[in-house]
Amino acid sequence: MNLSPGQLDTLFQALGDPTRRAILERLARGPATVTELAAPFDMALPSFLGHVHRLEAAGLVTTAKTGRIRTVTLVPGAFTPVRSWLDDQRALWEGRLDRLDAYVQTLMQETRDDPEP
Amino acid sequence: MNLSPGQLDTLFQALGDPTRRAILERLARGPATVTELAAPFDMALPSFLGHVHRLEAAGLVTTAKTGRIRTVTLVPGAFTPVRSWLDDQRALWEGRLDRLDAYVQTLMQETRDDPEP
Repeated sequence: MNLSPGQLDTLFQALGDPTRRAILERLARGPATVTELAAPFDMALPSFLGHVHRLEAAGLVTTAKTGRIRTVTLVPGAFTPVRSWLDDQRALWEGRLDRLDAYVQTLMQETRDDPEP
Repeated sequence: MNLSPGQLDTLFQALGDPTRRAILERLARGPATVTELAAPFDMALPSFLGHVHRLEAAGLVTTAKTGRIRTVTLVPGAFTPVRSWLDDQRALWEGRLDRLDAYVQTLMQETRDDPEP
């Protein structure tokens, strides 16, 4: 996946807020209207809509309006870029541990082949 | 793992910056001095140190000073809370798909048991 640094910034920043993460957790169970989503929060509607728009701008949710009802849906695979970045970090880290292990094995072999008197 | 929402906020916000992610990518290959880390960036040292301190405050790296040399090390398992949150979302999502599938299977069975004339 080719992803610009800016897209990852937007994704991570969108996830760095408890209200926005709670919205995503709710949407993982299925689509919901803005009214349903807002109900658990003691927050003015414009502020709440700001969070929804932030998630939409990050490509994490889509919204659709039917009459006066706006429904919010989680985008399938929305977390993939974040997960890919984390997987890359793990691969780098494990590669480093593997190299470290190979190095220690080499040292041990050398010690066995050429023991100190 | 019991993690406060504030800790996840700090982690995600720390990851929402290309310089900070680049520092973490470099440290996944092994510890480095601040001078080594700063070299690829066209950035004033105080700004760069601000990014390192932000990563340290989020618990992603540790720093240690020997004489005038400050070495930065990635904290093992530093990404675990972020990964756990993503895993939880995936489990919720897959649970939803499983229930949807079970529902469709039930509908199909009912249609077979009680076909329209």
